[in-house]
Amino acid sequence: MAMLVVMKAQATEAEIAAVCAHIEQLGYKPHPMPGTQRTAVGITGNQGEAERGNLEELPGVAEVIRVSKPYKLASRDVKSENTVITFPGTDAVIGGTSLAVVAGPCSIESREQAFAIAEQVAASGAQFFRGGAFKPRTSPYAFQGMGLDALRIMAEIRSALGLRIITEAIDNESLEMVEQYADVIQIGARNMQNFSLLKRAGRSRKPVLLKRGMSATLDEFLMAAEYILSEGNYQVALCERGVRTFADHTRNTLDLSIVPAVQRLSHLPILVDPSHGTGKRNKVLPLARAAVAVGADGILVEVHHQPEKALSDGPQSIYPEQFAEMMDQIEQIAPIVHRRVPRGIQVAATVEG
Amino acid sequence: MAMLVVMKAQATEAEIAAVCAHIEQLGYKPHPMPGTQRTAVGITGNQGEAERGNLEELPGVAEVIRVSKPYKLASRDVKSENTVITFPGTDAVIGGTSLAVVAGPCSIESREQAFAIAEQVAASGAQFFRGGAFKPRTSPYAFQGMGLDALRIMAEIRSALGLRIITEAIDNESLEMVEQYADVIQIGARNMQNFSLLKRAGRSRKPVLLKRGMSATLDEFLMAAEYILSEGNYQVALCERGVRTFADHTRNTLDLSIVPAVQRLSHLPILVDPSHGTGKRNKVLPLARAAVAVGADGILVEVHHQPEKALSDGPQSIYPEQFAEMMDQIEQIAPIVHRRVPRGIQVAATVEG
Amino acid sequence: MAMLVVMKAQATEAEIAAVCAHIEQLGYKPHPMPGTQRTAVGITGNQGEAERGNLEELPGVAEVIRVSKPYKLASRDVKSENTVITFPGTDAVIGGTSLAVVAGPCSIESREQAFAIAEQVAASGAQFFRGGAFKPRTSPYAFQGMGLDALRIMAEIRSALGLRIITEAIDNESLEMVEQYADVIQIGARNMQNFSLLKRAGRSRKPVLLKRGMSATLDEFLMAAEYILSEGNYQVALCERGVRTFADHTRNTLDLSIVPAVQRLSHLPILVDPSHGTGKRNKVLPLARAAVAVGADGILVEVHHQPEKALSDGPQSIYPEQFAEMMDQIEQIAPIVHRRVPRGIQVAATVEG
Amino acid sequence: MAMLVVMKAQATEAEIAAVCAHIEQLGYKPHPMPGTQRTAVGITGNQGEAERGNLEELPGVAEVIRVSKPYKLASRDVKSENTVITFPGTDAVIGGTSLAVVAGPCSIESREQAFAIAEQVAASGAQFFRGGAFKPRTSPYAFQGMGLDALRIMAEIRSALGLRIITEAIDNESLEMVEQYADVIQIGARNMQNFSLLKRAGRSRKPVLLKRGMSATLDEFLMAAEYILSEGNYQVALCERGVRTFADHTRNTLDLSIVPAVQRLSHLPILVDPSHGTGKRNKVLPLARAAVAVGADGILVEVHHQPEKALSDGPQSIYPEQFAEMMDQIEQIAPIVHRRVPRGIQVAATVEG
Repeated sequence: MAMLVVMKAQATEAEIAAVCAHIEQLGYKPHPMPGTQRTAVGITGNQGEAERGNLEELPGVAEVIRVSKPYKLASRDVKSENTVITFPGTDAVIGGTSLAVVAGPCSIESREQAFAIAEQVAASGAQFFRGGAFKPRTSPYAFQGMGLDALRIMAEIRSALGLRIITEAIDNESLEMVEQYADVIQIGARNMQNFSLLKRAGRSRKPVLLKRGMSATLDEFLMAAEYILSEGNYQVALCERGVRTFADHTRNTLDLSIVPAVQRLSHLPILVDPSHGTGKRNKVLPLARAAVAVGADGILVEVHHQPEKALSDGPQSIYPEQFAEMMDQIEQIAPIVHRRVPRGIQVAATVEG
Repeated sequence: MAMLVVMKAQATEAEIAAVCAHIEQLGYKPHPMPGTQRTAVGITGNQGEAERGNLEELPGVAEVIRVSKPYKLASRDVKSENTVITFPGTDAVIGGTSLAVVAGPCSIESREQAFAIAEQVAASGAQFFRGGAFKPRTSPYAFQGMGLDALRIMAEIRSALGLRIITEAIDNESLEMVEQYADVIQIGARNMQNFSLLKRAGRSRKPVLLKRGMSATLDEFLMAAEYILSEGNYQVALCERGVRTFADHTRNTLDLSIVPAVQRLSHLPILVDPSHGTGKRNKVLPLARAAVAVGADGILVEVHHQPEKALSDGPQSIYPEQFAEMMDQIEQIAPIVHRRVPRGIQVAATVEG
Repeated sequence: MAMLVVMKAQATEAEIAAVCAHIEQLGYKPHPMPGTQRTAVGITGNQGEAERGNLEELPGVAEVIRVSKPYKLASRDVKSENTVITFPGTDAVIGGTSLAVVAGPCSIESREQAFAIAEQVAASGAQFFRGGAFKPRTSPYAFQGMGLDALRIMAEIRSALGLRIITEAIDNESLEMVEQYADVIQIGARNMQNFSLLKRAGRSRKPVLLKRGMSATLDEFLMAAEYILSEGNYQVALCERGVRTFADHTRNTLDLSIVPAVQRLSHLPILVDPSHGTGKRNKVLPLARAAVAVGADGILVEVHHQPEKALSDGPQSIYPEQFAEMMDQIEQIAPIVHRRVPRGIQVAATVEG
Repeated sequence: MAMLVVMKAQATEAEIAAVCAHIEQLGYKPHPMPGTQRTAVGITGNQGEAERGNLEELPGVAEVIRVSKPYKLASRDVKSENTVITFPGTDAVIGGTSLAVVAGPCSIESREQAFAIAEQVAASGAQFFRGGAFKPRTSPYAFQGMGLDALRIMAEIRSALGLRIITEAIDNESLEMVEQYADVIQIGARNMQNFSLLKRAGRSRKPVLLKRGMSATLDEFLMAAEYILSEGNYQVALCERGVRTFADHTRNTLDLSIVPAVQRLSHLPILVDPSHGTGKRNKVLPLARAAVAVGADGILVEVHHQPEKALSDGPQSIYPEQFAEMMDQIEQIAPIVHRRVPRGIQVAATVEG
């Protein structure tokens, strides 16, 4: 069923008949259901056209409710088993029984800074390194990232430490560079409905990490993923990073309930970013623990060895020692939700180091 | 129809049959509607019990959507003509073709203050005087109002100036005093779902002005009115006063679209309060004009002759000169929406004065 | 400092001086701070009066920012150690290193129903039994609770099973009954700013569980607690139960970040209610785990042995078997956050049973 | 002043001194202000670096508040007189004392449809024609627009009817086509923080109409405009089109209060789109009237001669007769806010036709 037309209590038989006739004219099938108080008319047919029409304006109509979920490829209706994204030759995995841990600074600021942080997060058990090369900043006057140089530094980190690299692309130009150097292309919250960029990511052969927009509903979030999937790239992971509400004690309100909600409707893995989700260092560890306990497929955290000197997001970056403490806590919680943090890479990293 | 059960795309015939059987067991009638992608099952029957049930947990069920609106007495389904509240012996009217203008200070602070303001708003054309006697304050340490003394001062203002009095009751004790002294009992936003107080107001013989709660949906707003109506008091007017959102340029976000939305579904009049709706003096006049243009049945504004010395809400109170300017503007807009501000009382007021 | 006045970039020296003079006239002390782009003026003095004034309207003023937090007794500034609420003669504790578990049906429907559920939650390790006697319902036509009869049934449950009783009061009349029969008085979300009721609860000698309003900020939440504390009742626990947002995949958005935010500013314990916080049975266990992991002092969950027949909130009530599973999970998470679920009562319960 | 550090009530002198020292180390100037309850420390200096730092984590610190507004070119601080965008050789104007009226279908569907609507809106007094060529759709399976063909049809409409053309660009490729064929480049709500696209629009020589993002604050809205201005394009107009809230009676909540808020802080003109702002045909006229009354510099409305057959946004498009009625109403309201709808073009249009 595509839509439901709810009639007013006092709607006449003639009005109900007119609604049914209108639905048939549009090429759908009406299903009138008389109730004790009012009648509703279900509509079935080709949902692609469901938007057409004018039903709410017909005499006697109280309300029109859209029913069908328009996403297909992202839905468990189409694929019931979980999507698991692997990185051949490494223990890094997103989805399944693994808990993916992604850590690193908001921005790559220098080779020294990046390596200093990467070594510490690798030693504590992260499998993925994140670092901004292209930064979407609210102000045109703020630091916009080191660009290609940052990508090259991260590629070096992969070679040296065995970490997989996740970094954001903000337009077609940066996406082309990111897919060349990184292992996972991140699409940020501000671009969740930049449909041109989503389509371009859908034509890439690299996995995509799609962050939820600041006021995206679950349906819109899955529809944004659908844009990527519909171009042929099935390696998509989602990421909750806080939504915008009236609450002012955190920068955003981290909506952990979307994790089980996504897992019920979709086969795509979903991670949680407690750093952007709270915007405050002292709330990252509690919410990271909660994210693992709620059943997320992984977490993304900002780590900086000198956050007081960070060029962006310093106040929400945790120290490497806090990251180690967090790893210790989440590794204790993971088995309760039938997951584990893969630890093999770290051995390799140590050997290589 | 009370509810709609949307099945998953891959739901089996057996699962659909089980859902229908479950609905019958609960004493309702199921209406299955097979679609090209998925089946939906409509439910009709006694909606009072519609809440019972467990449908979302049955195998194959994707979603359950509630359809029926539970308000009755507030609905145009029951009473199609507009409710008009009159005040015999005066020109003051809420509803119909009148535009009700309610003005006065946030709090009554003294006899002098109250009269100074009342005389000026009466001279500019207000028919109603508002002033707080019992103040619901976020802080227990803030000024809580003059109580009974304030009510007596306002009763004097009615006698002297011919203005009808609107003031807030915050509990049963204050409501008993308010109904004795005032013409309209206001129920504030924070008490919109204080159901004991709503029922008590429903047993009063005085009209009630019900303000929308800070995060109330249209349905909840009308259901709160339904509590008053269901106790036998049909003289209810609604008031939009801003809702809570992420936006930080005003104290609340004034939702003017609820005016036509209420007018479509309900026969009750609806006023707008641009003072609380914005919290900033420099935005009161623009939003008062907008409220009249959108078709509201009236406006409530805070006016203070010395807002810099007001004991509460000073920053959002307008000066008497601004009120006069506002009256001039809205009296020009009113005819465009087929309304007028009754002006008869002011003659009387002048005569009495 | 009480407030901060930010001047416009082009504000003149004379305008800045006028603002300072105005502040002095109001009886405060101005602290001008010239910056490279614009000047700001800090205000210190008696904050009780801070609301007075008209500063934003003065020439050259860009913005006025309120700084002081007005709560005192709820603040760690006044009492730095955590509040722990004990129930002499039992192992039940709210706060400290205990994890308080509160379980039971939304509404008490009958002696049989209440005992059936209470026995099962006690056996699984709950220390507190919750059940609605007085129900604040959106619709006046919905089941409003069994009232005094429900209180008597719960008192029997305490005697028979050793569980402490938590139930909601919705007005002064019900509060008087609740404080006579129950161990903890609950004030619901809809009444969080029913200041008369808060004051009445503050004069009770029973502990109070205060739920966060649907759109309450952290400051408003603590100020509501302050109303209770300021009347002399220091045994107050808070409860997060979801806030209202645009998100539609859950009934409310559970804001777990308020747990560490409250714990940073206030000494009062804070619990989490994942049942109302999500409104969906299939999300209660994940969010209960997350609540414990984030560091909450306890959880409240709705449990019903026959949720498909529940008179209210059936769709969000979990089965007793799910409750047992949840207890098993949270008892594994608790030690990671240095807490434990007291288990002594259950021995007693078994002996008595 | 860039920031303000609020100390805890019990902060020691040593802690305050440490905060001041830390501020000096960062290269700023601290301004300690001791209050009766607590001390605050203002920070002045180069605000570009204000983000650096770690202040909230220092002992004794309660809160850090950012003060400076980072937009410059969009601010009245830099340019106090209103920006007025003219279209030489026509009477069309955005800003100043004109009321700009922009009307047309959501999508261009055919030459016949476009001309049928354009002729009617021109006859009723619109100066601008809007029609989608490139449509950002939530679903990848929905109609995405006619692209270049639509642009060509609109260019024909300009020649034939004298209307100025406004249409949306969704990426660099479409922007290049849009700037070639249209008079104003629209950046849609979903792209408000697509900074690459904003910069590209900033390098165009055509005026830009920037729509507010669905959850954008006033500051973020002005900062997005700043991206365009900072690249050298000063012809920017803003457009409020509804924000996302919990309210479900309209598709979005139209926030008219942002009109006077923008006009206070910025010299840029601001229009209102009541079609997207409400999503319902029956609410477009009331909110269009309100938008003019609140003082907007213009309105954007979707008009369709056969909305029941529209390929997108049918339910919110008004009929040409409703548009004529709306023009009649707003032309009556305009003089009250000292504006007028320019009518000269229509004469020209008739002559040309």
